[in-house]
Amino acid sequence: MKKLIVLPALLGLWLSAPAQQAIFEREGVVSPVVNNAEKSVTFRLEAPAAQVVEMGGDFLPLDSLGKNGAPMTKNADGVWEYTSAPLPSDLYSYYFMVDGVRVNDPANVYTLRDVTTLSNIFFIPGTRADLYEVKKTDHGTLAKVWYPTEHGGSRRMSIYTPPGYESSSERYPVLYLLHGMGGDENAWSELGRACQIMDNLIAAGKVVPMIVVMPNGNISRTAAPGETSRGLEQPMFNLPNTMDGIFESHFPEIVSFVDSHYRTLPDKSNRAIAGLSMGGFHSAAISRQNPEMFDYVGLFSPATKPRGEVYSPVYTNIDKKLARQFADPPKLYYIAIGKDDFLYDENVAYRRMLEAAGYPYEYHESEEGHLWRNWRQYLSDFAPRLFREK
Amino acid sequence: MKKLIVLPALLGLWLSAPAQQAIFEREGVVSPVVNNAEKSVTFRLEAPAAQVVEMGGDFLPLDSLGKNGAPMTKNADGVWEYTSAPLPSDLYSYYFMVDGVRVNDPANVYTLRDVTTLSNIFFIPGTRADLYEVKKTDHGTLAKVWYPTEHGGSRRMSIYTPPGYESSSERYPVLYLLHGMGGDENAWSELGRACQIMDNLIAAGKVVPMIVVMPNGNISRTAAPGETSRGLEQPMFNLPNTMDGIFESHFPEIVSFVDSHYRTLPDKSNRAIAGLSMGGFHSAAISRQNPEMFDYVGLFSPATKPRGEVYSPVYTNIDKKLARQFADPPKLYYIAIGKDDFLYDENVAYRRMLEAAGYPYEYHESEEGHLWRNWRQYLSDFAPRLFREK
Repeated sequence: MKKLIVLPALLGLWLSAPAQQAIFEREGVVSPVVNNAEKSVTFRLEAPAAQVVEMGGDFLPLDSLGKNGAPMTKNADGVWEYTSAPLPSDLYSYYFMVDGVRVNDPANVYTLRDVTTLSNIFFIPGTRADLYEVKKTDHGTLAKVWYPTEHGGSRRMSIYTPPGYESSSERYPVLYLLHGMGGDENAWSELGRACQIMDNLIAAGKVVPMIVVMPNGNISRTAAPGETSRGLEQPMFNLPNTMDGIFESHFPEIVSFVDSHYRTLPDKSNRAIAGLSMGGFHSAAISRQNPEMFDYVGLFSPATKPRGEVYSPVYTNIDKKLARQFADPPKLYYIAIGKDDFLYDENVAYRRMLEAAGYPYEYHESEEGHLWRNWRQYLSDFAPRLFREK
Repeated sequence: MKKLIVLPALLGLWLSAPAQQAIFEREGVVSPVVNNAEKSVTFRLEAPAAQVVEMGGDFLPLDSLGKNGAPMTKNADGVWEYTSAPLPSDLYSYYFMVDGVRVNDPANVYTLRDVTTLSNIFFIPGTRADLYEVKKTDHGTLAKVWYPTEHGGSRRMSIYTPPGYESSSERYPVLYLLHGMGGDENAWSELGRACQIMDNLIAAGKVVPMIVVMPNGNISRTAAPGETSRGLEQPMFNLPNTMDGIFESHFPEIVSFVDSHYRTLPDKSNRAIAGLSMGGFHSAAISRQNPEMFDYVGLFSPATKPRGEVYSPVYTNIDKKLARQFADPPKLYYIAIGKDDFLYDENVAYRRMLEAAGYPYEYHESEEGHLWRNWRQYLSDFAPRLFREK
C-alpha cells in the first residue's frame, strides 16, 4: 500500500498545535494513479469497515442498470481497489459508492460540479489532455465580472482575456461562449477547460488571441449557485425562464458592456457566438435576432426548439429572420453533435431545414452523446476557425 | 424524511436520454438545514447499509481524542441525523465519517479545500454571515492574473477590483493580502471570503474602495494546486522555500506589476500589506525591508521567526531595519491573534520587543486559535482602518 510520507522533523512544531487548528499533511492511500505504461488508472479507498464499495465514472462500462460503474475489491490492508482498462487521453470524472452512499475520493481534492453533483476528476495525458491541462505557456486572465442589466440588477459573467492583454494596447476579437441548461458562468471555464484550451491553442499559434465572454444564461439567477444573494442554495437543472427568450432578447446589453469595458474589435467580423445544448439554442436565436452582430456561430449539441408552449418575439418569424441572417451569411455557421446524442434527431431536422433553404453551414459529427468530453473537443475544433478572414 | 420534489412532466423529455448523459435533478435528503428559530443545524445522510456514521466539523465539541466530532443516529428510514447546538453566526465546515471513511455530504455541493482536505460549508445567518455572504449590493471583480517574474516564469495571483473600477477612471489604494503555509492565491477569496467582506463593507460605507491583491507566497509553486503545469498534484502543507526570504525579496516586482497594470495610487499612504500566519511573517518582513512602501501593516496570527536554520539577507539586521521602518512609522501596525493560538507565546515576545524599542502598534486579541474564523474577522476589523488619513 502506497503511503504519503510525512516529515515529522519539519512538522513537529506545527503538529503540537491543538487538534482543532487545521494544520496538517494528509496521510493515506494515493488515488487515483495513472499507470504510465498502459494508461490504465488505479483507484484506491481505505475502508476496512465498509461492506460494499463500488465506483461510478464516465469512462466505466455500462452495467445492467445502464449506469457507468464497476465493483471494487478489498485487499488484505482493508483498501478497496479498482484498475480501469487503458483509457484514451482525456479529462474523466468518477465517484465512489461506500455501502450505498455516493461519495468523493477523500485522496483526491480535485472535483468538478456538474449541475447537482460533485465528482472527482483526473487526466489521462496525451493528445486531448495536452489541450486541457495547464502547460508551461503564457496564460490569459480569467475575471468574474458583474455587469448592470435593464431587466433586474447586476449579473455575473466570466471573461477570459488572452496572454498579453493587460500589457498591450491592442484590440481583440470576442467569442461569446454559452453554457447549457443547469450550467452557469463557471461551466465553460471549469467543466469546459476553456481557459486552458485557449491558452494552449494560442501558444501553439493555432488560435487568434481573443477575448472569451462566458455569461450566465439562466435569467432567474444572477450568478452561479453560491455566488448570489440566495446563499448556498441547492443547484437545479430545471430553472425557470431558461428558454423563454428573455436571455436572448437582452443579449445586446452584454455585447455593449463588453465593447465599452474591454479593448474589443467591435464589429461583426470580429465577433463569434457559440454554446452547448441550451447555449446552442441561445446562440442560434441571438445570432438570428441580430444578423449584423456575429460572423461566426457555433452550435454544439444544440437544442433547436423551445421546450413546451413558450411565447416570445424571439421565437416568431424564424424563417424571415434566418433569411435575413443568411442574406449576408456568417463566415462560419458550425454545427457539431455526437451520434448518440438525444438531440440528434431534431438536429437532423434542423440541418435539413437549413439545406432546403440553401443556407450554408459546416457539420461535425462525433462519437458518443451529450457530454462535456464532446463539448471540449468542439470548442478545440471551432476556435481555430475564428477570425482568420479579414 | 424531507425529499426534493422532481417535476416529472418537465423532466421527462430530458430523462429519456441515455443514462451516461449527465442531465438530472438530484433526489434525496436535504442537508444541512439551519433551524431558523434557534440557529441549530440538522445534518442528514441517507445510508441504510452503513454500520457507523459520525461527523466532524469546526463547530462540534471536542471528543476524547481532541477531535471536533459527534455521532449520528439512524432513523427508521435509514437516514443518519445529527442536530447541532445553536450556533453563533459564522461560516462553518463539516464532513461525514461513513464506516470509517471521511466523505463529503452528497446533498451539499458547497465545499472548500483547506490545504489537503475538502469539507462542506454552511452559513449561520446573522452578524458575521452578513459580512461573508453575497448580498444584494454592487460587487467587485475577481481576476486570476499571471504576472512575469525575474526568478522563474509567470506566477498567478488573485486581484479584486472594487465595484465601479471598470467604469471609472479613478485611481485606488491597494491592500496586499497574503495567505498562510499550505495556502495559495485562492485562499483569501475562497476560505477567507475576502471579496464578500470587501463588497459588503464598501456597500456599508465602512471601507474605502480599494484593490486587493492576493499573490501566491509559495515560491516553489507558480499557482494553486491544479493551476500549474504540475497537473493535479496532491496539495502539500510543507512546501519547499516557503519561509526562506525569496518571496519577500522579490515582492517589489508584484507591487511594480500592479502599479503598472492597474489604476493604483502608487505611494506609501495608499498601500497596505497584511497576512495570516506565514503571510503575517511575510508582511512583517516585506514592510520592514521596504519601509517606504506600506503605511498599513496587518499581522494576523503571524509567525514571527524563520523555521529552522535559514539564511537570507531578508532576515539579517532586523533591529536596524525595524528602526528604519519605525523612524517614519506606518500609520497602522496591527497585530491580531487568538488566545489559544499555538503562536501566542512567540507573539507575546514579538510585542514585548516592539514595546521595548518604543515602536507603536495596535493589538487585537480574540477567542480561539489558528483558524479562518478568526482571520475573516481580523480582515473585517482591519480593512475599515485603511486609507482614512490623507
